[in-house]
Amino acid sequence: MLLRFTKMHGIGNDFMVIDLVSQHAHIQAKHVCQWADRHTGIGFDQLLLVEPPRSPDVDFRYRIFNADGSEVEQCGNGARCFARFVLDKRLTSKRTIRVETQSGIIELSIRSDGQISVDMGAPRLQPAQVPFQADDEALSYPVEVEGRTLELAALSMGNPHAVLRVDDIDGAPVHELGPRLEQHPRFPQRVNVGFLQVLDPHNARLRVWERGTGETQACGTGACAAAVAAIRQGWMSSPVQIELPGGRLSIEWAGVGKPVIMTGPAVRVYEGQIRL
Amino acid sequence: MLLRFTKMHGIGNDFMVIDLVSQHAHIQAKHVCQWADRHTGIGFDQLLLVEPPRSPDVDFRYRIFNADGSEVEQCGNGARCFARFVLDKRLTSKRTIRVETQSGIIELSIRSDGQISVDMGAPRLQPAQVPFQADDEALSYPVEVEGRTLELAALSMGNPHAVLRVDDIDGAPVHELGPRLEQHPRFPQRVNVGFLQVLDPHNARLRVWERGTGETQACGTGACAAAVAAIRQGWMSSPVQIELPGGRLSIEWAGVGKPVIMTGPAVRVYEGQIRL
Repeated sequence: MLLRFTKMHGIGNDFMVIDLVSQHAHIQAKHVCQWADRHTGIGFDQLLLVEPPRSPDVDFRYRIFNADGSEVEQCGNGARCFARFVLDKRLTSKRTIRVETQSGIIELSIRSDGQISVDMGAPRLQPAQVPFQADDEALSYPVEVEGRTLELAALSMGNPHAVLRVDDIDGAPVHELGPRLEQHPRFPQRVNVGFLQVLDPHNARLRVWERGTGETQACGTGACAAAVAAIRQGWMSSPVQIELPGGRLSIEWAGVGKPVIMTGPAVRVYEGQIRL
Repeated sequence: MLLRFTKMHGIGNDFMVIDLVSQHAHIQAKHVCQWADRHTGIGFDQLLLVEPPRSPDVDFRYRIFNADGSEVEQCGNGARCFARFVLDKRLTSKRTIRVETQSGIIELSIRSDGQISVDMGAPRLQPAQVPFQADDEALSYPVEVEGRTLELAALSMGNPHAVLRVDDIDGAPVHELGPRLEQHPRFPQRVNVGFLQVLDPHNARLRVWERGTGETQACGTGACAAAVAAIRQGWMSSPVQIELPGGRLSIEWAGVGKPVIMTGPAVRVYEGQIRL
């Protein structure tokens, strides 16, 4: 069969998006790996599947696959592209969409300026929810890495994040500490590592070492996690603008127990058809 | 307007191909750069334009642009994709196609097994034709690089090539010598640098440092140049199988003054539409 897809990106984090509401296809891990190749395939960071809802209280089911074919829980930039996609493809006429993901239900809304806001849910702050090995919940935790003690925040945005504050983002040891913290025994499911430079209470710069991938241009959940860590520790106050290498996201958070709202762009690049 | 394109590859060297015979579009350098981006665009090594012939003795005009928007003379893997494209799109019913390129006319033919043969024209062996600074034509030339003397062949396949024989391709100093030879003052238009390991008279392995790009998975003209250099120096005899990191090409050459015939695969990956 000939499968229709759309190539999209959110601040440089790029996606192949497949409508499995109006198309029926059985997509296997081998297809994902083949399509993900940037020279012999389509090329993307993640594949997004738009599926019909499995319960009446949501509008869609949203599944995310990495380039290696493994399924992941959450992708903030992907969620914005998902919202733009279902609106552009007229799969819904709602301006606010409820979506079932592997890490729970999220809410997406299209703003009048075309930017997309995603209700990413409340951050999970208890160590066991991250998961992170610590006796009690704290604003930050000392973690030993090769004889040095680093002070970091640890929280989940549906996926695990560590956040370190740095003075200078350009010189931050992303490639040295990123892989070491990712594999640190206190993060049993490994972790995404954000390096945050606070510029003023509403502006910060962020680089993220992504679990299983390395440094990326833009990590949406990483921006949310960094904003939560910075707001909780009193370094910043909501709303927060986070500048990532690929572009800018706006993050709002009203405090513990409240959802994180991430706002940013989503771009459709081209429409494609590939033989399955 | 909505522009139709096809994404193709030849042993991992990948192309966006646009039919400008049945579509009319004014494509500018800024579009090429934008589309070439692998995260925010389509992503490709080169853009191939299929244009109507400008004279009655050819079937098409074939133009090639690098990801930076600059026009290049020749691309062997691109020529095979060009042939597969015009056949699949039924722009011709001929099995042998004559094509005008920036470096002269080339002939393409589709074999019954689906592989595509390209008559790449005769290699240009005189130093001034490469261009390479040397008093007389020779099978190889001593060239000084940082106090060392390297023995290399220098020839043109429509674009300039240097070929060095190495004992072990995996350990070849591609990233050290590649950029130094590319920029060497004796190659005034810079040069592509091939590192060739001869396995037996009909089999060799090749890695190529491409001018303006760095090491690539597969350089079609580089395989032709390496085969010519090896046949001329008596290391190999035609036909020659060249194994590149991205795949295998077969090269035939009957000797000085005769054309080089390159045979290999060309794959259509997907069909796309992008707003221009």
